[in-house]
Amino acid sequence: MPVSGIVTAMNLEAFVLGCGGMMPLPYRHLTSVLLRREGDLFLFDAGEATQISIRRLNLRWKKITAIFISHMHADHVTGLPGILMLNSQVDRDEPLYIFGPPKIAEYVEQSRRSLDMYINYEIIVREIAEPTVVWEEKEFRIRSFALRHTKMCFGYTMEEFQRPGMFFPEKATALGVPRGPLWSRLQDGQPVTISGDITILPEQVMGPPRSGRKFSFVTDSLYFPEISNEVADSDLLICEGMFEDALLATAMEKKHMTARQAAQIAANAGITKQLGLIHYSPRYADKELKLLLDEAREVFPATFLTRDRMNLPIEFVD
Amino acid sequence: MPVSGIVTAMNLEAFVLGCGGMMPLPYRHLTSVLLRREGDLFLFDAGEATQISIRRLNLRWKKITAIFISHMHADHVTGLPGILMLNSQVDRDEPLYIFGPPKIAEYVEQSRRSLDMYINYEIIVREIAEPTVVWEEKEFRIRSFALRHTKMCFGYTMEEFQRPGMFFPEKATALGVPRGPLWSRLQDGQPVTISGDITILPEQVMGPPRSGRKFSFVTDSLYFPEISNEVADSDLLICEGMFEDALLATAMEKKHMTARQAAQIAANAGITKQLGLIHYSPRYADKELKLLLDEAREVFPATFLTRDRMNLPIEFVD
Repeated sequence: MPVSGIVTAMNLEAFVLGCGGMMPLPYRHLTSVLLRREGDLFLFDAGEATQISIRRLNLRWKKITAIFISHMHADHVTGLPGILMLNSQVDRDEPLYIFGPPKIAEYVEQSRRSLDMYINYEIIVREIAEPTVVWEEKEFRIRSFALRHTKMCFGYTMEEFQRPGMFFPEKATALGVPRGPLWSRLQDGQPVTISGDITILPEQVMGPPRSGRKFSFVTDSLYFPEISNEVADSDLLICEGMFEDALLATAMEKKHMTARQAAQIAANAGITKQLGLIHYSPRYADKELKLLLDEAREVFPATFLTRDRMNLPIEFVD
Repeated sequence: MPVSGIVTAMNLEAFVLGCGGMMPLPYRHLTSVLLRREGDLFLFDAGEATQISIRRLNLRWKKITAIFISHMHADHVTGLPGILMLNSQVDRDEPLYIFGPPKIAEYVEQSRRSLDMYINYEIIVREIAEPTVVWEEKEFRIRSFALRHTKMCFGYTMEEFQRPGMFFPEKATALGVPRGPLWSRLQDGQPVTISGDITILPEQVMGPPRSGRKFSFVTDSLYFPEISNEVADSDLLICEGMFEDALLATAMEKKHMTARQAAQIAANAGITKQLGLIHYSPRYADKELKLLLDEAREVFPATFLTRDRMNLPIEFVD
């Protein structure tokens, strides 16, 4: 039976901190998603009351690694001061990174200055003005891509690099590699030498490299087909679906998307597996959201409605 | 039977939007009180998520007349941008007034600029640097008074002016004033003439002027005895009671009050009728707040614990 590489053991899951657009409602907080990859927490958008949503999840690990802001509208950013203070309550030596469009640095700096905020760790703000890789580690990267809204706005995607292929113990055994440390070295992609001078290469005992996982976050934007290229092959795409079909003109005027347009992006985006709608207009009561879901599913059946505090594990498919 | 003047019909009530200090908790929003006097709404402090609290009250009348900020700490002010946008959703011709210590104007202006906030009404910000009358109408005024915190901080008190005394119909009848418009004029404080040349003065048919109602809001501050002078004779005093006795040193260090100190203020403040504790430290779970209540009641029995969404009618006593 194949054994997968060590790298694949990383847990990856998303938490919906809020699914509402424009304004927080008593039971629908503003759009924000927390992505956890093993010990690292990445926050996407931080509208008012996001710190309450984080607390309601009752997570033990509250130390956010980096925050990615889509755009500088109040419903995506005014929760930042509270998040910064929340992070003062955990011991942290590492800086907190904040990425966002121009003005994010000014906003953070002004908030700190106007409010004399006590922050006991370093905050590093990086403004982004064009699509770029904003975060890179050994096993994954996060990059921004341009959306089209009433002000500069970015979507984000987290992409894991390729993992090693499956390891086939029976092949290793047949080639005379004894179970133990040599197996680990092969799984790590290194050749090993047995019986004094026989070299066994990893590809002799392993399948082809396997793809990593991909998570994408898209809000707020007009629909345009190129978004599909950016989010192609996502294991989980979280995308705004603010309005029903009948309000397409409103959506276009306000530079937002209908649920059906979000589904169109997913349908065109390679083998994207799941679409979670988010950033609902406050005009829809909870029970009315089914209309958005129904319209989206006509185009992309693997659509679901995100809800506050939903936990979304992102599993490997192989 | 005495008939009271028309002026006394005004409804007055306070709503506790949040009772927590420092940070919002899932079930305890940040300290904020909405005072409603008939059609006018006055908001005292506006920490993160205050707009959610307002919505949860499900009030029909959402048009806030004026906002009074105690001091420029995040937990008292970062809800302002959301409140400003919430007020864009109701038709309003009148400006919205915001009062607070220096930097409040800068904070509001920067928020509007950084976030391109769409606001369809006039906002007038008035910075206050010393005790002053901040709001005055025909029947009441609101004034600020200095507190002692880690930065400039003000308490506020809403005082109704004296109301006309009781009207005694039997005295008017005995003096020959016929029931009808002349009674109303006497109740309004104007003399009337009967039988051609007999003048009847209001004081002939009415008792002495009666006091109006008073509401006071005190947070965040060290304890100091002069606060009692400012809030003397309050019908309702809302005052921070952040810590238990055992944490007096902590309270003093952080320039906050214990519940017992809040009670001491009330006990020394003339005939103050009720004390509502507020701005609890997040260290206390809801059921632990009874400790604060018990300690305060030893000094001032008419103490109660405020809770989120509590409605507190303020009635005339005569």
